[in-house]
Amino acid sequence: MDYPHLAEHKLSSEDILKGNFLHARRDVVSLPDGSQATREYIIHPGAVMIVAQLGDGRLVLERQYRYPVQDVMIEFPAGKLDPGESSLACAQRELLEETGYSARQWARAGMLHPVISYSTEFIDIWFARELSLGERKLDAGEFLDVFTASPAELLDWCGKGRITDAKTLTGALWLQNVQSGAWALDWQTPAL
Amino acid sequence: MDYPHLAEHKLSSEDILKGNFLHARRDVVSLPDGSQATREYIIHPGAVMIVAQLGDGRLVLERQYRYPVQDVMIEFPAGKLDPGESSLACAQRELLEETGYSARQWARAGMLHPVISYSTEFIDIWFARELSLGERKLDAGEFLDVFTASPAELLDWCGKGRITDAKTLTGALWLQNVQSGAWALDWQTPAL
Repeated sequence: MDYPHLAEHKLSSEDILKGNFLHARRDVVSLPDGSQATREYIIHPGAVMIVAQLGDGRLVLERQYRYPVQDVMIEFPAGKLDPGESSLACAQRELLEETGYSARQWARAGMLHPVISYSTEFIDIWFARELSLGERKLDAGEFLDVFTASPAELLDWCGKGRITDAKTLTGALWLQNVQSGAWALDWQTPAL
Repeated sequence: MDYPHLAEHKLSSEDILKGNFLHARRDVVSLPDGSQATREYIIHPGAVMIVAQLGDGRLVLERQYRYPVQDVMIEFPAGKLDPGESSLACAQRELLEETGYSARQWARAGMLHPVISYSTEFIDIWFARELSLGERKLDAGEFLDVFTASPAELLDWCGKGRITDAKTLTGALWLQNVQSGAWALDWQTPAL
């Protein structure tokens, strides 16, 4: 902890929601001035997102209806970690299940926290290349379109408000800086 | 709705959590194939984020401990809409309360959805310039440091994983593309 004058410390913790999908907790914490407050937040196992690029530079994207925002969103493929699953294994599984693509080369770019005020969720950002197309295996009740777009189209949609999903906007930031050479990726070829 | 083959429709809705801070609902929905599923999500009033730039180009940033991720995060100033409050009024209020700065010129850049799978939250992205420094008025129990950084430092921290907050990463994407001239802002000078 580099900034102890900002830190909050747990005094107690309880479940306040165990839903089918959402799990929320409420903690009582001590604040930097010694007073107390409650913090309510969603417990999340973490997730991955995949920026998968075809040989011609086009990106693998999805269109999916997102009920909480009542709209069809354009997104990079993404999904939650299964218990005990590594981040790379999850990225390989989600890309294949949702889009049908497998990738020979992978690079972990970084990480994002979508909502630091009320969720523990993190999303690992993976780049994938040398793709081959097989058959996708959507979960029951999962409906999404897979399509491709050029990096220029993607960035245009971000600037025009057609893409508003924070993880996808963050993927666009990574893509733009990797393409310009400002940020470097460390590519690996995982064993099959 | 451009993609009716992806849409989900509400059949019923109930509160599943009314906490001090979090409000969650569970809806039963019909899926595109006619089957049913439940959707659980956080109800959020919406928020704003401010990319405020000083005359020398430096950006106004905050360091704040974020309990759900158990770390001090670097962020652009941001905050929730009060009931009936306009997005611009919220941005002006939050910038002043958290940092002490007022801005003469404002531009709404766009919007992001931090977590489309389980929250209704949106964040309006505002740019602010021609700043003057007054006195900040933090809420009770709010502890945060205000500091400044150059755009180059900000982008370096994004690429090196020192910034992982999705709204701030999205602000960096906007800043980079506004600076390069790829994306334009429509500046306004609100009446005082």
